[in-house]
Amino acid sequence: MIKLFYAPNTCSLASHIALEEAGAAYTTVRVDFAINEQRRPEYLAVNPKGRVPALVTDSGTLTETPAILAFIAQSFPKAGLAPFDEPFAFAQVQAFNSYLCSTVHVAHAHRMRGNRWADDPAAIAEMKRKVPESVGAAYDLIEHGMLKGPWVMGETYSICDPYLFTLSEWLEGDGVDLSRLPKVVAHRNRMFERAAVREAIAEERR
Amino acid sequence: MIKLFYAPNTCSLASHIALEEAGAAYTTVRVDFAINEQRRPEYLAVNPKGRVPALVTDSGTLTETPAILAFIAQSFPKAGLAPFDEPFAFAQVQAFNSYLCSTVHVAHAHRMRGNRWADDPAAIAEMKRKVPESVGAAYDLIEHGMLKGPWVMGETYSICDPYLFTLSEWLEGDGVDLSRLPKVVAHRNRMFERAAVREAIAEERR
Repeated sequence: MIKLFYAPNTCSLASHIALEEAGAAYTTVRVDFAINEQRRPEYLAVNPKGRVPALVTDSGTLTETPAILAFIAQSFPKAGLAPFDEPFAFAQVQAFNSYLCSTVHVAHAHRMRGNRWADDPAAIAEMKRKVPESVGAAYDLIEHGMLKGPWVMGETYSICDPYLFTLSEWLEGDGVDLSRLPKVVAHRNRMFERAAVREAIAEERR
Repeated sequence: MIKLFYAPNTCSLASHIALEEAGAAYTTVRVDFAINEQRRPEYLAVNPKGRVPALVTDSGTLTETPAILAFIAQSFPKAGLAPFDEPFAFAQVQAFNSYLCSTVHVAHAHRMRGNRWADDPAAIAEMKRKVPESVGAAYDLIEHGMLKGPWVMGETYSICDPYLFTLSEWLEGDGVDLSRLPKVVAHRNRMFERAAVREAIAEERR
């Protein structure tokens, strides 16, 4: 049985949605960031990085959203969440998700996790100030080319969609003007119509 | 024919080494960061992100190191660079490379690319100051668990190895004390013994 360690309002929602889309049998464990549970020895024994998501499988534990999403897609091939048999198409999926983790999520993290990269409060405030610009610039590339529509990869829904959706939920908080991102907003709305998305969100809010 | 756009002393070396390891037929194009060639219209037409690496294939252009590495491994299966038929093992490879791009490379980038996340010179200097600590903490996790040895995934060489090697080459510049990372240093030395590594480095220095 698969077990997902998640925290509400974090990128673990992408993996949660993907498990729903895949029709996987799984359970969830909430990690409470409000009490810094992710840094406690019990959780560090699950994931020494002290982050979510972590996916405990029969073979062992996986971390890192792009890897977990690809694992879910490959483990439940009937759901058709990634084109594993087409190296170029699969690489495009991986490239999109890699951009989300290494550029988009990182730009966003400078709003509330600036202490990863600086200690001085003034520097942390300055990082926070630039978030609308840096996240906005990354989303401009997504809006003007990377998001093919109606889904990220075009006509076929894939593991890129729950991940983009999850990060796009943070745009207002990041101070990005949504009026310049009509395709991204339409994608977000389209995602809300999916049962898997509604179910994952509902469970995290319970 | 595959064409790799690269720049010396950047993460594109990982893809360059992987192409050598795969025995691929490929050509290279050097992008000159000294004259900011990566921001010129000619290069932005190849990669709108203005970064390296970019891999031009018969099917189209790929970006993002983890995706390019997986593409090379999947396109040249005889080289055995990734366990595509084992979902968990492949996800472990992807998780390692995802950690490198989203945590290790990002921590490193605060040394010379701080302007991505702040404009104030004092904040950029403060980010630079913390690099030995943030890169060091990431490498502590690699040293104590993630790097199984002798190769990243254990007995089998994979696309994780050229990527780790490439980022490990920056440790001295990042101010990380190598004496605390004996396994990482041994891995780096082991990599230097491989013909593919020597060839890729030699070509980039020509």
